[in-house]
Amino acid sequence: MDRINQAIRSIQPPDKRIMDLTQERLDSLTKPLGSLGRLEELAKVIAGITGKVAPELKQKVIFTFAADHGVSEEGVSAFPKEVTAQMVYNFLRGGAGINVIARHVGAKVVVADLGVASDLDTSERLISKKINYGTKNIAKGAAMTKEEAINSIIAGIEIFNQEFENGVDIIGTGEMGIANTTASSAITAVFTAKAVEEITGYGTGIDEKSFLNKVRIIKKAIEINKPDPSSAMDVLAKVGGYEIGGIAGVILAAAAKRVPVVIDGFNSGAAALIAFGLQPKTKQYMIASHCSVEKGHRVILDYIGLKPLFDFNLRLGEGTGAALGINLCEASVKILNQMATFKDAKVSNKDKL
Amino acid sequence: MDRINQAIRSIQPPDKRIMDLTQERLDSLTKPLGSLGRLEELAKVIAGITGKVAPELKQKVIFTFAADHGVSEEGVSAFPKEVTAQMVYNFLRGGAGINVIARHVGAKVVVADLGVASDLDTSERLISKKINYGTKNIAKGAAMTKEEAINSIIAGIEIFNQEFENGVDIIGTGEMGIANTTASSAITAVFTAKAVEEITGYGTGIDEKSFLNKVRIIKKAIEINKPDPSSAMDVLAKVGGYEIGGIAGVILAAAAKRVPVVIDGFNSGAAALIAFGLQPKTKQYMIASHCSVEKGHRVILDYIGLKPLFDFNLRLGEGTGAALGINLCEASVKILNQMATFKDAKVSNKDKL
Repeated sequence: MDRINQAIRSIQPPDKRIMDLTQERLDSLTKPLGSLGRLEELAKVIAGITGKVAPELKQKVIFTFAADHGVSEEGVSAFPKEVTAQMVYNFLRGGAGINVIARHVGAKVVVADLGVASDLDTSERLISKKINYGTKNIAKGAAMTKEEAINSIIAGIEIFNQEFENGVDIIGTGEMGIANTTASSAITAVFTAKAVEEITGYGTGIDEKSFLNKVRIIKKAIEINKPDPSSAMDVLAKVGGYEIGGIAGVILAAAAKRVPVVIDGFNSGAAALIAFGLQPKTKQYMIASHCSVEKGHRVILDYIGLKPLFDFNLRLGEGTGAALGINLCEASVKILNQMATFKDAKVSNKDKL
Repeated sequence: MDRINQAIRSIQPPDKRIMDLTQERLDSLTKPLGSLGRLEELAKVIAGITGKVAPELKQKVIFTFAADHGVSEEGVSAFPKEVTAQMVYNFLRGGAGINVIARHVGAKVVVADLGVASDLDTSERLISKKINYGTKNIAKGAAMTKEEAINSIIAGIEIFNQEFENGVDIIGTGEMGIANTTASSAITAVFTAKAVEEITGYGTGIDEKSFLNKVRIIKKAIEINKPDPSSAMDVLAKVGGYEIGGIAGVILAAAAKRVPVVIDGFNSGAAALIAFGLQPKTKQYMIASHCSVEKGHRVILDYIGLKPLFDFNLRLGEGTGAALGINLCEASVKILNQMATFKDAKVSNKDKL
């Protein structure tokens, strides 16, 4: 827990003075004031986070964490749980959605096993931080022990810090875990106090009957476990997942090192809720990429106070939306760094009318 | 007019059979059905347009056309009209917003003078197709002659066709012209029959008083000129602009060659209205990148029936939103071309439960 508290304590607010200087720079560029809208907002946020007036986002990393969920035995997902491990191999071979989009935006994908239910073949491209062979079934008891919850967050911190040593300018979160939207819905319901029906979706594509079962299971999980919304660690342990804890750790560690974190979809949002619960200042390091089809995602974004960049009806996870978001962040800082000023380009400004 | 009719006649609908094959391909990839949302829709549309099951979008071009507007003398813009020429030089030096974003997405910017009010220094990077030294003041009469309207569209067709010979996989539209949102609002009001107040915005950032003047001028322009909404050429000639005609020509020529056209903001939207008026089939070749702050833009998108990809509060024009849109199009076809199938990756599909 010391390592987590160390990260939590070292998180400072973004640099307001740098943000003001960035606004001045933006206003000097050859365009009507504010005409690049959200790109300008993004540039300013990233300058404040990094503490640099001319930040560059060269080294981009997506953290895609995999783990299994005991609750999959309740028939809450359209896919069998073996798919978690199969998809890890797909990530390592570069054939998954996140690999394609990450290559497109020039980002590296860091794949880690936080708790896949089977032993995976070792690979130099796979980080093994297996906390356990999948969580326990939350419909019957706690997902994990308190110690495991702590260890999943520490694993995320360690994975981030290792990457940070290689140089990281911006990161994105991602995950893979059959049945993890069930855990994420439970986390969301506990923190936001919304009705389970309002924050539960169809995941990978279940039918109406399975949806009703999923809602029932989530309600049961909350009833049995009674997670305490004032303790993010308690919520993670009782109804969370190892990959969700890992991502929360990545968010804490990135915020501690002043690295912007682009949040992906619903499951990453649930991890963001855990990080936000542990340290509300993490919010200022989060950039919401998109709003997912999973209806609980909008509730999470509103709860934390994040405005997504786009809405593409995505519901794949893996970090796919975050990778697209990182690309927009990169465009925003290039605006800041590469556009000519009115003065340099000898363009008449509005003031000179 | 023959060249325009030739382009109009040669536009065919997208290939439905290829779109069906693309859907099959998308459904075989290692992701839940439809989980990449709009990226999947985009991939399918682009496959249909290009007639290729595995389209590649390597050569990307943004056409940024500049021209002046006589109506600028009515005080409808926040900037003096000299800025049009000054910004052309900024484009040629690579310091404008569109240059930065185009470089970011790997697109070439083709800059053309369709009717800037001054003689510009020659440059091998500037295409000169000057129809006239700016349009006439639409508050006092027609913007241009019918012949000039035709010639501006032909100029756009010629510029596109010249690029097409070098190889073009996807294009974006862009423009620069002080006071051109006044022309675009007039065009939009004529085609959509909406009240001028409902489709007029603040352009580059005018104050409330100037806004009321702008509305008055647009109403006067429509009243005096009486553009005929059943004739797109009449609308272009009476209240349009040379760059707007040029972009309409690019859209027609691209559709004729089965090249997808990513539409930028409000002024590009007005050009899209002209192209759509001349040949409604062009709609199926248009991809709307974003919805601009200019409130008339949403009206245009609804009128043509286009759903924008994102809303970033952009109002710069130049092709900036289109360039970001092209990047998303490229991501979508990479999904199609690079993702592993369930079969290849030995991942269990939903059906196998």
